[in-house]
Formats: sequence, C-alpha cells, structure tokens
Amino acid sequence: MQTEQPSPLRVGLIGTGFMGKTHAFAWRNVKAILGGQPGELPEIALHTLCDTPKPQAEKFAAQFGFAKATDDWEAMVNDPEIDVVSITTPNQMHKDMALAAIAAGKHVWCEKPMALTAEDAAVMTTAAEARGVRTMVGYNYIHNPAFLHAQALVKSGAIGRIVHFRGWVDEDYQADPDLAWTWRARLADAGLGTLGDLGCHLVSMAYGLCGPVESLIADMQTVHETRPLPDGTGSGVVENEDTATALLRFQGGFQGSISSSRSAWGRKNRLAWEVHGTKGMICFDQERMNELQLYVNEGPKATQGFRTILTGPEHAPYGAFCPAPGHQLGFNDLKVIELAAFLKAMKAGQAAHPDFRAAYEFERVIHAVAQSARGGGQRILLGGDM
Amino acid sequence: MQTEQPSPLRVGLIGTGFMGKTHAFAWRNVKAILGGQPGELPEIALHTLCDTPKPQAEKFAAQFGFAKATDDWEAMVNDPEIDVVSITTPNQMHKDMALAAIAAGKHVWCEKPMALTAEDAAVMTTAAEARGVRTMVGYNYIHNPAFLHAQALVKSGAIGRIVHFRGWVDEDYQADPDLAWTWRARLADAGLGTLGDLGCHLVSMAYGLCGPVESLIADMQTVHETRPLPDGTGSGVVENEDTATALLRFQGGFQGSISSSRSAWGRKNRLAWEVHGTKGMICFDQERMNELQLYVNEGPKATQGFRTILTGPEHAPYGAFCPAPGHQLGFNDLKVIELAAFLKAMKAGQAAHPDFRAAYEFERVIHAVAQSARGGGQRILLGGDM
Amino acid sequence: MQTEQPSPLRVGLIGTGFMGKTHAFAWRNVKAILGGQPGELPEIALHTLCDTPKPQAEKFAAQFGFAKATDDWEAMVNDPEIDVVSITTPNQMHKDMALAAIAAGKHVWCEKPMALTAEDAAVMTTAAEARGVRTMVGYNYIHNPAFLHAQALVKSGAIGRIVHFRGWVDEDYQADPDLAWTWRARLADAGLGTLGDLGCHLVSMAYGLCGPVESLIADMQTVHETRPLPDGTGSGVVENEDTATALLRFQGGFQGSISSSRSAWGRKNRLAWEVHGTKGMICFDQERMNELQLYVNEGPKATQGFRTILTGPEHAPYGAFCPAPGHQLGFNDLKVIELAAFLKAMKAGQAAHPDFRAAYEFERVIHAVAQSARGGGQRILLGGDM
Amino acid sequence: MQTEQPSPLRVGLIGTGFMGKTHAFAWRNVKAILGGQPGELPEIALHTLCDTPKPQAEKFAAQFGFAKATDDWEAMVNDPEIDVVSITTPNQMHKDMALAAIAAGKHVWCEKPMALTAEDAAVMTTAAEARGVRTMVGYNYIHNPAFLHAQALVKSGAIGRIVHFRGWVDEDYQADPDLAWTWRARLADAGLGTLGDLGCHLVSMAYGLCGPVESLIADMQTVHETRPLPDGTGSGVVENEDTATALLRFQGGFQGSISSSRSAWGRKNRLAWEVHGTKGMICFDQERMNELQLYVNEGPKATQGFRTILTGPEHAPYGAFCPAPGHQLGFNDLKVIELAAFLKAMKAGQAAHPDFRAAYEFERVIHAVAQSARGGGQRILLGGDM
Repeated sequence: MQTEQPSPLRVGLIGTGFMGKTHAFAWRNVKAILGGQPGELPEIALHTLCDTPKPQAEKFAAQFGFAKATDDWEAMVNDPEIDVVSITTPNQMHKDMALAAIAAGKHVWCEKPMALTAEDAAVMTTAAEARGVRTMVGYNYIHNPAFLHAQALVKSGAIGRIVHFRGWVDEDYQADPDLAWTWRARLADAGLGTLGDLGCHLVSMAYGLCGPVESLIADMQTVHETRPLPDGTGSGVVENEDTATALLRFQGGFQGSISSSRSAWGRKNRLAWEVHGTKGMICFDQERMNELQLYVNEGPKATQGFRTILTGPEHAPYGAFCPAPGHQLGFNDLKVIELAAFLKAMKAGQAAHPDFRAAYEFERVIHAVAQSARGGGQRILLGGDM
Repeated sequence: MQTEQPSPLRVGLIGTGFMGKTHAFAWRNVKAILGGQPGELPEIALHTLCDTPKPQAEKFAAQFGFAKATDDWEAMVNDPEIDVVSITTPNQMHKDMALAAIAAGKHVWCEKPMALTAEDAAVMTTAAEARGVRTMVGYNYIHNPAFLHAQALVKSGAIGRIVHFRGWVDEDYQADPDLAWTWRARLADAGLGTLGDLGCHLVSMAYGLCGPVESLIADMQTVHETRPLPDGTGSGVVENEDTATALLRFQGGFQGSISSSRSAWGRKNRLAWEVHGTKGMICFDQERMNELQLYVNEGPKATQGFRTILTGPEHAPYGAFCPAPGHQLGFNDLKVIELAAFLKAMKAGQAAHPDFRAAYEFERVIHAVAQSARGGGQRILLGGDM
Repeated sequence: MQTEQPSPLRVGLIGTGFMGKTHAFAWRNVKAILGGQPGELPEIALHTLCDTPKPQAEKFAAQFGFAKATDDWEAMVNDPEIDVVSITTPNQMHKDMALAAIAAGKHVWCEKPMALTAEDAAVMTTAAEARGVRTMVGYNYIHNPAFLHAQALVKSGAIGRIVHFRGWVDEDYQADPDLAWTWRARLADAGLGTLGDLGCHLVSMAYGLCGPVESLIADMQTVHETRPLPDGTGSGVVENEDTATALLRFQGGFQGSISSSRSAWGRKNRLAWEVHGTKGMICFDQERMNELQLYVNEGPKATQGFRTILTGPEHAPYGAFCPAPGHQLGFNDLKVIELAAFLKAMKAGQAAHPDFRAAYEFERVIHAVAQSARGGGQRILLGGDM
Repeated sequence: MQTEQPSPLRVGLIGTGFMGKTHAFAWRNVKAILGGQPGELPEIALHTLCDTPKPQAEKFAAQFGFAKATDDWEAMVNDPEIDVVSITTPNQMHKDMALAAIAAGKHVWCEKPMALTAEDAAVMTTAAEARGVRTMVGYNYIHNPAFLHAQALVKSGAIGRIVHFRGWVDEDYQADPDLAWTWRARLADAGLGTLGDLGCHLVSMAYGLCGPVESLIADMQTVHETRPLPDGTGSGVVENEDTATALLRFQGGFQGSISSSRSAWGRKNRLAWEVHGTKGMICFDQERMNELQLYVNEGPKATQGFRTILTGPEHAPYGAFCPAPGHQLGFNDLKVIELAAFLKAMKAGQAAHPDFRAAYEFERVIHAVAQSARGGGQRILLGGDM
C-alpha cells in the first residue's frame, strides 16, 4: 500500500547538538545524494528548527537552511504545517516530545535510545501504532553499506549457519576518573549508562545479524563510583553503569555475548563484532567503518585467510556517495542513508526499520541486561510480547 | 587586505560526474558545516549548473538545488550574475574553460590536474594572476584533518629534521588486462596516465610535508600496452603510463621517492606516505583516512612504538563535522574543507592553497617525472621559475 | 634457600607429539640460549625418551639427542637415574604419570591442563607438595616477553588501576562440521572441550594480569552436536563444549569476561585480551605474539593513540634469542623460556610459576565455568581453599 | 649426482655474535627439527668454535655444545677434521676466511654480504667453483615458509604475469643522530652502509620473486654526515650511505623499485615488498613474518579484498616446527631452514641456493645501486656475466 504523502514533506527538527547536526545534515542532503531517481524520494522542506535559547535556534536554522526558528517545541509539533518531527534532544525528553508529535499526527524520527525505560518505549510504540504515524529510531550504524553487506553475506549462507556471536562497544568519554560529575551519572536523567549510550547500538547490529535474543544473564559495574562535582563542593555519586557484559542466547539456538564500556581508554567508537558460522566468520569494527573482515572455508587451506573488504559501489548505496571504491564514507553519511530508508518506507506506506517497535525490541535487551546484573546475574527471558 | 566580495557568492558549476558531485556537495554544505561563526564564510547562491545534455544538467540542478541549468558553459562563465566557477569536466577541457572564466573575471575552482601539460598550467596561472582572480585546484587530500595534523607535527619538530620521504598512490581501475580501451589511454585526450590521475595528489602531499622538489630521475611503464577496442574491432594502443616511479631530491637537502600505479590490484585509494625524521616518523594511508601513524623516539625504548592516532575534534576542522573522536570523516567531507579554505582566502583577499601557481608547482613535478622517464632516467632540474 | 641439585639434571620425557617436541626442543636448547651466565642454569642430560611404540621413541630420541629410548613410562619414572620428568601425553594420562613420578621423588614438568578435573588437579598438587618435588605446568604463553612486559606495565601503574578485563581464545580445529568424531569429543577421555584445550591458557593470562577470580557466571554450547564416526557407521555424540563464555568478578573488585571457541573459522591461535585501566589500556593477540598494544592517557590528546610495541632486547629475555628488536620469537621459543623459569626455581629451591598449585587455581576456573554453564548460569564462588 | 659426504659432517664455526649464535643454533637443531626422515640430513658433529678472545670461544662452545674452542681461525679452517666452515665474523673478514677455507677444501656457509665489493664476491665465487666445494650465503629471509609460499603462488600464476615490484628494508639502528661513530661508518671496514646491511636481503627476495635485474638508476644519501667520536674528541665522518633507493628494470620486462634506510625511526625489521600481477597482488612484511597478504581478482567484486594468510603446516616446512597453524615461527627458526637447504644440497651434490654465485648476483645489484648513485643517477646495466 502506497499512502498519499504531503509534498514537500515539511520538517521540524528539535535539537542542535551532536545528533541535531546529523539530522539537519541528513534532511538537507538526502535528496541530493540519494534522490537520483525522480520520485524516489519526496520533496523536502526544512520548515522549522527548534532549540533553546532561541538565538541558538535562529543561528542554526540560518546555517542549515531551515525557514523558521523557534524555542517552543510544543507549538512546533502541533504546527499543522509540519509533517515530520526529528527529535534529537537529551534522552529524557524523547518520550514527551514523541508522544506529543504522535498525538498531533506527525511522523517521528527519534534518536536512540528512544526512552529511558523499556516501559516508556512500549508506551511510545503503542501510541505511534495507534495513531498510524511512521516512526524511525536513530540506529545509524545498521545503515552502513558495510553492515548491509555483512547482512547480505549472512543471509546468502556465505558463512553457513551462525553458531556464535560476540560484540563490543567501547568509548573513553567516561574513562578519566577526574572528569566532573554530570547529569549523565544520574539514573533519573540519563537512565542507563554505557548500555543506553552505546550498548543499544550493538544490540541493533546483533539483531540485524542474528535475530532476536531469547534470554540472557549479565553483570555490570560502575568503575568510577563518584566524580567531583563541577562546583568543587565534593563529589557526586555515579548511579549508572560504566561497563556491562551479557551472555546471550538467541532464538536461533546459538549463544553469544555483548560487552560495553564508556570508560575504555583509547576506544573512540569501537563498535565491533564477529559472527561465527559453520563455514566462515565475518568481523567488523566501526573505527574502520569502511572495512569488513571475511573468512570463508573455501579453496586450498594454504591460501585461506581473513580478507579485508573495502566498501565501494558494489555495496549499495555507497555508489550514490562516490563512484570509486575505497574512498570512504563518513559518520554523517550514515545518517543520510538512514533518513532515505525512513523516507522510502513512509512513501511506501510501510514500517521503516527500525521503527519504534523494532527499537523497543533492541532497547528491552539493554534493560534486561541491567535487570539481570542488578539481580546478581539471574537469567532474564525476553520471549514475551510487549 | 580584505577585498569586497559579492554577497551572496553566485556559483556556476560545470560538470556532474564524480567530481561534479563533490563540488555540488561542497557548495551546498560548506556554510552549514563550517560556517559556524557569523560572517566567517560568505553567503552562497547555487546559481547555475552546466552539463550536457541539458536534461542531465536540469536533473542534477534540481537534485542539488541549483537555481538554473544550462548546457552552454561559455555563456555561463560570461554570465555577469556568476561570481565563481567550478570546473569539474574531463581534464582536457580545464584549460579553455578556466581561461574563459578568468577572462570574464570569475574566480575559479578547478579540478586537478589543472591541465594536460605544464605549459598549459603555466599559461592558466599567468592569466589568473594577471586578471587578479582567485583560484583553487582540487587537491582535496591535503585538506584532511589527519594531513593537517601531520603537517603541524612536522612543523613543530615532533619528528625532528626531515631526512627522507616515501610515497605511493595506487588504484586498480586499470589493472584488468581485459578492460576496454578508452580515451584515458590517449595522450592527446588524457595527457599523462597514472601520474595525472593519481600521482599529482601524492606530489601535493609531498610538497605539503617536505617542500619543493629540486630535481628527480624517473622511470615509467605501460604495463598493458594495448587494450581491446570497445567495438570489438581489434585493440587500441595505450599511449600513457600505467606505473611511474621517481627518485626525488628536495630543496631541503634530503631525498625521497614517489611511485604510482593505476594497475595495482586490490588498491582502491592507497595514497600513502611516510616521512622520516631525525626524531621520529609519521605514516599515512588514505584507505584509512582517519588514522595517522606516529613514532617518536621519546621515553623508554621498551614502550616505544608506532601509535595510531584516530582523528577527532583536536584535529581541526574535524569537530565541525562531529564532536566525537574516531567517528570518522568521509571522502566527500574533504571537499567541504577544501572549499572553505578557498572561501576564506577569497574573503581575506589572499591566495588560497593550492591556487593555480601552487598547483602548477605540483603538476610540473609529474611532467618532469614523465620527461625523465622518456629520456631513460635523465636528471630533471625543477629549480627554475615558471 | 638454595637446594642441592643433581648435576647434570637428568631428564626423562614422555611423549613425542605436538607438546613432546616442544619439550624436547626446550630441554635441548635452554642452556645454549638462556644459559649465558655460568652456573645460572644446571647442566642438563637428555637421559631417556619414552613413547609407544618403541621404534617411535627410538627415532625421536636419536633425532633430539636423548641417550635412551623406552616404551615403559613406569619404569622410566622410577629409574633412579632420572631427576625430572616431562609429561606431554594426552590429558587423561597426566594424573597417573605425575603421581607416579612424584611418588618416585622426581620433579615434574607437566603439560596443561594438568588433569581432567579440578579434583584430580588438587590431588596432584597435594601429592607434589607432600613429597617436596618441584612442579611446573606448561602454560607457555605467560612466558612470552610481550606478556612479561604487559605484566610489568600493569604493575608499574602505567595504565593505572585495573577496571576491566576481556579475553578470548579461539581456534578453528573443530570448526568444520564434517570433521570426524574423535576421543576429543568424549568427556571421559578429554574432559572439557575448548575450555581445557584453550580456555585455561586464557585464564593463566588473566591471572597474571588481574589476579584471582572471585566468582563467575557462564554459558557454553556444543555447536556441532554430533560428528560422523570415522568408520562411516553413523555419527557420534560430541559430549563437551565447542564454545564457552563467562562473566568474571575478580578479587581485585573489578569485572571481566572470557570466551573461548574451538570452532571459530579463521582463528589459528587467537589468544587475545585487553586490560582496561584508569589511565590506559593494554591489548595483546597471540597471533601477533611479538606485539603489544598500549594506550596511555598522557600528553596532548591530539597525539594519543594505541601504540604497537614490537618486542626486542628491552623485553627480557628476548635479547638472549636475538640482539635486534622486531626480529621475532616463535612459538617454540616460549617453551625454552618456560623451562628456564622452571630450572631457576628448582635451583633456587623455590616454587616455579605456575607450579601445580598455581595451575590448579587456573584450572578450577575453567571447571567452574563448565559447572555454572551446566547449571544454567548459576554463580560459582571460587574463594575457598583447595 | 650424489657425492660421498663425510659422516658425521664436522662443523667449524667462526664468530659468536648476532649471526654466530644463529649459526650455532641452526647447527645444533637442524637434525632435531628437520631431520625427521632417516638419512635425509647428514649426521652433524659440532667440532670447533672459533672466536677471540679464547675464553669467549670456550664459553660459547660449552654453551652450544661444540667439542673444541680456539682463537685461531686459520688453524681451524685447515684442520683436516673440519668438513664445513660457518663464517659469521664482521663483513670485512669474510673474504680471507672464505678463501682460506675453500683452499683447504671445506664447504663454506658464509654470512651476507659475502664481501665488501662485488669484485671480491666474484673472486670468492670463482675460487669456490674451481675447488668444487659447496657454498651457501646467509640470506635467511628467503627461507621463510611465507616467502616460499609467495614464490609458489607467483609461479603457479595465482597473480598472473608480474607487472611491478616494490620493496623496502628499514631499521632504526642508525636513526639517532647522537649515536657514536663506529667502524660501520668507514667504507674500508664496512663497505656499503644500509645497502650492505639491509638492502641485499631485499634484493634476495626481489630475485626470488621477479628474477634478475637488467639495469637500474639510483640515488643515496648519508643523512647523518658526522657522528660524535666515542672518545669525545670531536666527530667522525660517516662515509657510507644511510638511505638508498633504486629504480629497477627486471629482465622479465617490468619495472620496480627498492629502498633501504638504516635511519628509519620505528622500523625494527621492516623488510617488506609487494608484487603486482595482472590478476592480483602479494604483499609481505618481515615484522609480521608469519603473515602473507594476497589479493586475487576472483569471485564477486563485492567480496574481494586482501586476505591475511597465517602460515601453518600447509606451508612447508612450517609443520616440522609446529603442527598447528598460526602458532608462529621466529627469526632463529629461519636459519634452521636455511641450513637444511644447504645440507640437502650438499648431500645431493648440487648447488645450494643461494650459493656464492647466486649471492654474487644479489650483491652486485647493491654495488650497482651505489655506483649509479655516486654517478648522479646514471643507468647501470647488470646484464653481463661475472
């Protein structure tokens, strides 16, 4: 079913931080880069940019080409001239903003994690489905052509049946013990720690390769238990986890593990995994996001080895960015691909991937990890419905 | 001296191929990404897009947001509403287009190599300087934050005095012996082979790190001497080189070498080099364009080693693209940085780098390589002026 | 206390397989390579080589320079002319041979795992300590100069306080689903699967870097549940695990994980780990056994990065093998270093590392992993004494 | 023709330094490791070890198991009880020692470079061939199973016809400008600099892969022109080259280049090369001596990539050292393989590879490089006979 879509699609974007910029960049460029076929993507109008204080919104709107600027997100999500809302604010604000946008009948592109709790994510999912709007959650790494190629390889049987999975996602933005305490350390504001910031990305990749998780056992730790308060008056407690690790059983009948740390010195974006199959293995590391490692048990043993595949035009949609292989996509480019997927789904009247429901599936895994860890490693079953 | 610049700067772009897209992308995004400070970059108007046939120009103009489309480049470069012209057509057309644009008083951003011969490049340089327009040549790789950081390290003395340089630039787009003959194989159309396509990029990096070349001796080879004609009527002669290598003496008193192949299986964009100094070494490979290798003879021998520096916000202007280190820039992003350098230079009324004069310096090196090689390896001196 | 040692030390070696050769190589070369200081190592006499059938023992004895050959291990371990016994037979034979050698008052160098069960390992440990003989277990990888250097770095505080550990040990010798069933698949013969073959090596490294494990939860899996019988009559059940993963809590108050697979295509000896500290990280991979990766939060952020340290004479005892750095040790060389450690301990009248007691500590961890996994992931405490 | 060989073969070894130890190690272990088939290798008797002062010879003889020690090399090479002489002394002594041994009818295993000049190498070659003794020169790196496999791949056509070669060999033992002046800096004592120490190894590999060089042009440089005298009385002149680079034309009709530096910070044993073919490429780096990189233009483009082959039992004679792949050989192991090749050739009454004649071919290339460089880059033809 192909639904009638407004043309142009009028965009309201909330937030101008790290993710705000990537959304603005994507909205601004998706047609230019990935709209090569007439009618394939809708026309886009950069309608309103929202942030506080208002001068920040105005400056950013001018810079990225949004027609209007505002500091009133509620007004914006209710503006009848807006068709789709990008939500890139701090995590604790996602829920209210998304629910308001849904209530106003807007499509929603929301950053991850979609909510601080699995319960909230479920509420958001139900609301969106009830209202019939299209949703997308910002799991940008699964839109990397290298990842899409890995999925295609797995699906084609290139490495046989999957028998094991391992993944890690590490950064070092909380590695320094002397860093000041911030809201990121408070459960009520940030929810989970490394699991929410990083771990859910890894889960999105694990799902994409291996399918749903059936159950898990886990452990986690706050390695820097207090941090100096910014005002020098003492130290504040870090309430959420710096590291977390879980042993997974997938519905597919095999096992695996995931591990995350936001206190891993030297790691800047090490979102890495390996999928073990009966015929081969595929490995990936986001710090070398244009490379895929593939080992296949084929041909003479004497010439077998892990090969480094450099992404290129053979790995769609790389070619829309550059016709020459090995010239490399960057972080921001992934967001453009993600948005195109959302737009195509919208146009086709189908669910995008990952929509709120799929993202809820990813995020309940990280909450289950935390739940197991808090319970000393008890087994958590994920089999049930929302 | 700061010159009066038109505002907005009205852009005419010729070409919609590989490089045409990168220019369009850069023009479209330079303000959004790198225009964070008010007044730092001029306003930009995407005025006219030129290509043949006209429908291609129209489609591309719509896609990238150019107001007008045309198939008449001469009319466009003479249009008084155009302030600056981007030239991204096949190499043999650069000269006429650039000279026409210069004659019309337009600033010119031209792809590399700027001309098929050093003589033509000299003519273009003289014309631009006589007319007083600003020029820039598309040596995008020297705008990579990783490269800028390498230059800063060298300049700061981090590796001491330079004692040696080695560079390579390899791709495999002409590696297959069965590829059909094209215009790229004809001297009159393409000029040099691998030296013009790839080698001059390497020279631009060598210059940026080591300064000018004083003299050289060289050798080169056409490894696939004929190729099948596309119409199946036989084979055509490949008139230019597939590989070329030169031994350089730099004006700085040290030696080095450069080597290039367009027939190097497996290499997709291996533009790599190492600078040897009295205190350390720096290495780089464009296939891992967000990494820099640094060895410094400091601290205990037992902990010395090449370190892999992942570019991040400490390496300007990376932070304008992404506030998180290790998240990676892509190929197209480099073009945005290149354009910003052009715009800033224009605004400041100063020569951009590399302008036609600097690019002429790069390109006369590759022609000297060819000249030496044709002469059996005779020494070519590059010391003289244009 | 320095004990009187026989001179020369008369060696009896049981086994001529993979490990038998490494022991023979080590006995043959330890004095030549590491005996540079007079009196530092005892004189060694290659007295008797034992294997079945006897011609195999005779051939091997001649090849490696043992004076005598026998197929009667019991006679050999009771031969009063033998001072020390090397045990390199299949795992299920270690216990009886070691106990017999101990009873005869011989020092014992036994391959890992020292026994099929932790209980057997405890019995062997008690017997050796009661009899007062010196023991050593073949955990060769912890004698790698790269590992010793990592330990020294950790101890010196180079990476601060340890906050996390991750380790993996993978090979692919059981990755092919079509491989025939062997005794390795039977619990009664082989004991554990990947944990016994590979996992205990990883534990020895984790201990050396992080100290003892306090408790763990684990999961494991037989990925190829049956294998074709060699005689073509059907298929045999694989009774032990192909993969195993555990979440560890160390006595030092931090967490970690270990994972092992014998069915990991492409991995040939990937015994790898990373130690996360408050100031840096160290990583290692046995497939690049002469390299160590070190990241330290020191100096400007712009030049921080993981450095690759190539082992050399600064990393004792590398220099005894080669005076030039980066020239590389091999697998067999590690066994020579291991033996020297045993000989020095013997000479000094001290416990070698790892002796039976230390090896028991390593091996009870892998048995605890299996126990936890069999129990569905229950927490196993390792705090108690033997 | 199989000649009568003495049994056991009685060895006299001159020198106990870096290479002396590797020869002793090889003599001591070649039968144990590679003598698995009865009669395949001759019996070996470690007869006499020669060095000065005599106590050093005695200590080393005891350590490595030589029956006698002496400080009189002339007596030793004339001792009728000696069958073969290993020469591992400083380069300037090779010629006299080798000629004396040859005159006495001994087989000679001589370290590289075999002489300080090509003329001396020719004299030595002629003498050995006239006297009918077997010779071998210590080009150990071409005995690496990884290299042998590369050769086999090239020969089998795995990468098609060779079209280009590049090689580098770098170390940093002369990188520090403050290192004291030594005899290595004097032409009369050391002959060539980096070319003699390192460059000739690279030539041996280039020959093994690509065949003979037809002509070359070259450049070289002394980057540290003086060094402080050890006695603090001023500075001494460095008379030979720190870096050298040459452009090669191979008899096979293709081009290539070699480059060497002994002043390359961070390089410990970077003897690396790449062979470009019409169907693929092979790359190698001695710093990762158990790995080979192979790219082949086969199968779908989307899964092509350089593969890392870890050497194992499929790459003979790796399996004689270790039955498990990826467990790695070390530097000293290569010398054992080299010696076995010498012994087999001796036994078969055939020329070993590389014997004096082959080594002369390698070494005249490095002297031609120096000659061309001294002549400002003039072309040197290597086509003629000795």
